[in-house]
Amino acid sequence: MKIAVLPGDGIGQEIIPQAVKALKAAGGHLPLDLNQGEIGWTSVVASGEALPQSTIDLIDRSDAILFGAIGGPEYEDWKRKNPRGSPLLRLRQDMKLFANYRPITLFPELINASPIKAELIQGLDLLIIRELNGDIYFGEPRGMVSDTPGQRESINTMRYTEAQIRQVAHAGFKAARRRRKKLCSVDKANVLETMLLWRDVVTEVGREYPDVELTHLFVDAAAMELIRRPTHFDVIVTGNMFGDILSDEAAMLTGSLGMLPSASIGTGAKGLFEPIHGSAPDIAGKDIANPLAAILSAALMLRYGFELEEEAQRIEGAVRQVLARGLRTGDIMEKGATRVGTQEMGEAVAKAI
Amino acid sequence: MKIAVLPGDGIGQEIIPQAVKALKAAGGHLPLDLNQGEIGWTSVVASGEALPQSTIDLIDRSDAILFGAIGGPEYEDWKRKNPRGSPLLRLRQDMKLFANYRPITLFPELINASPIKAELIQGLDLLIIRELNGDIYFGEPRGMVSDTPGQRESINTMRYTEAQIRQVAHAGFKAARRRRKKLCSVDKANVLETMLLWRDVVTEVGREYPDVELTHLFVDAAAMELIRRPTHFDVIVTGNMFGDILSDEAAMLTGSLGMLPSASIGTGAKGLFEPIHGSAPDIAGKDIANPLAAILSAALMLRYGFELEEEAQRIEGAVRQVLARGLRTGDIMEKGATRVGTQEMGEAVAKAI
Ligand SMILES: CC(C)[C@H](C(=O)O)[C@@H](O)C(=O)O
Ligand SMILES: CC(C)[C@H](C(=O)O)[C@@H](O)C(=O)O
Repeated sequence: MKIAVLPGDGIGQEIIPQAVKALKAAGGHLPLDLNQGEIGWTSVVASGEALPQSTIDLIDRSDAILFGAIGGPEYEDWKRKNPRGSPLLRLRQDMKLFANYRPITLFPELINASPIKAELIQGLDLLIIRELNGDIYFGEPRGMVSDTPGQRESINTMRYTEAQIRQVAHAGFKAARRRRKKLCSVDKANVLETMLLWRDVVTEVGREYPDVELTHLFVDAAAMELIRRPTHFDVIVTGNMFGDILSDEAAMLTGSLGMLPSASIGTGAKGLFEPIHGSAPDIAGKDIANPLAAILSAALMLRYGFELEEEAQRIEGAVRQVLARGLRTGDIMEKGATRVGTQEMGEAVAKAI
Repeated sequence: MKIAVLPGDGIGQEIIPQAVKALKAAGGHLPLDLNQGEIGWTSVVASGEALPQSTIDLIDRSDAILFGAIGGPEYEDWKRKNPRGSPLLRLRQDMKLFANYRPITLFPELINASPIKAELIQGLDLLIIRELNGDIYFGEPRGMVSDTPGQRESINTMRYTEAQIRQVAHAGFKAARRRRKKLCSVDKANVLETMLLWRDVVTEVGREYPDVELTHLFVDAAAMELIRRPTHFDVIVTGNMFGDILSDEAAMLTGSLGMLPSASIGTGAKGLFEPIHGSAPDIAGKDIANPLAAILSAALMLRYGFELEEEAQRIEGAVRQVLARGLRTGDIMEKGATRVGTQEMGEAVAKAI
């Protein structure tokens, strides 16, 4: 079980070590082989490249990636002068990570952190599956079609093949089958031909899953329904662009971005596992970041990357336990709870495992 | 002041007459010339066409359009067999309605209807300006590039010209200038070249408005911030596709879709004014629909279409007055309030004017 550990920038450097602790605690009996690599600004500083060859080689030799975050003011400056695309987008494409799984779960202890009224959000447990290899992110042609001053014009192409849609649709139906058997496909078939193909193909694939209830929503209606009655959803499957927007909207419903993990899965078993939050340069280096999203990402790695459901649940159970005991990092702090730092939280979880 | 009145389908037929009453009450001293036309399913039934020539002619002769809603199960069926594009998209394009204004205001009386916690939403008053003539809605090329079974593939093109962006950017800065002087431009410049041009042009236009504070957000971050701290926004300007999603998300924050109007403005003064809600076939014909969004759309027509600020405020003041008196349609009903029907609400507003 070779795992590439890429903490990246900012708080990535603090939270990923806590996720590693949890992995080791839950997987002490497993042949874990963890190897650290550099990515992002940390890597630019070390080698001049955001995604150096040494990291690509490490990934090639690994079965899974545990990823922290990249970004920060210096990195953004550098990127403007070196616009060769985001390392994350490159990894998604090169590793053929076609589906991003984002479970949006409300921890009952943290219900007060939500901007949404408690009665609407209670029991929230939805899974957003976002297509990750197609759409307007990678579609060609793209770029400036005219740079004549006063007449500049630029394009991007939303593009989907039947095979791309089929692949992520299967992922959606399979996930729904393991849950409450409801799949909602989100598109914009009333305006975009690409999304009409999306709807047709998802509907066709659905015939192979008669036990799963399939519904369709336009993306604007979905953006509303996520706020109006989030608990009515089970699994949502959608394209790369709409998924980027809706999964962040859905995450914010919980009010606890520091708690949410994600998994990006490819055709092979090799996946990339990362917290949904960013590098948070403003709080980096202060031992105050919440490591739980990273720790829960390690749990997703065990579940989706290695099919070790029991070990995954051991981590998740430990997280629930420390929350029930009242331990909180600053971002989820509330009256009566015990405030702890990044390391203390990580150690508490490891011990609970 | 020639006004084309197009009630359309479903509750459009019930709410638009109430908006007309308000218009007449507020504009009794004005040379109002109201003429009704058909559109949507109502029009298909009458003449076989969703947007008949008689309605196009009426619009050509008019200075403004008061629009209800179109849609319903029979219409959707018919459209599948007659996919010549939505009448609304055609009007936006033909009339060059390049900016959609959607004021998102929370009526203090209705704060409990919001899914969001009261302390986060109190005083909400934001304006979303959505570009309406460009982007992936109209970009060519578009459609199936392969219909070979098993290898189907389809595309749409996101396309923006400098002129299109410039035009709506000016609208954004001008609106911000009349309000709290903050403009947030929403794009996805970290992934899409089209949105990089968007950001560049908005930034350039911003130099002409040094008194307006310009910020930029990526669309995924904006989807989060709208929920996390909606009251921090003043004016948001964004593209057609992102605007479709974000404006519906923002509307849902208030919990009162039946209260929200919109204005679509072109290069000339001629605008289209409509409630943001749809035709709601499930409650049509029962005299229970909320006419206030339509009535407030009439106020926007006076403000943006005819620059009659005082008359616009007279309508808006009357709406606040009937709400303060406790009158409520079913959708915004709460304990202790007086439940009224569509007509009764419309008459109460007209009387208050
Ligand atoms: C950083 C950016 C390229 C990325 C995306 O848009 O996919 C991010 O927003 C995400 O959701 O992982
Ligand atoms: C009906 C549809 C074409 C339209 C759009 O996507 O623009 C609607 O959602 C809107 O926002 O007015």
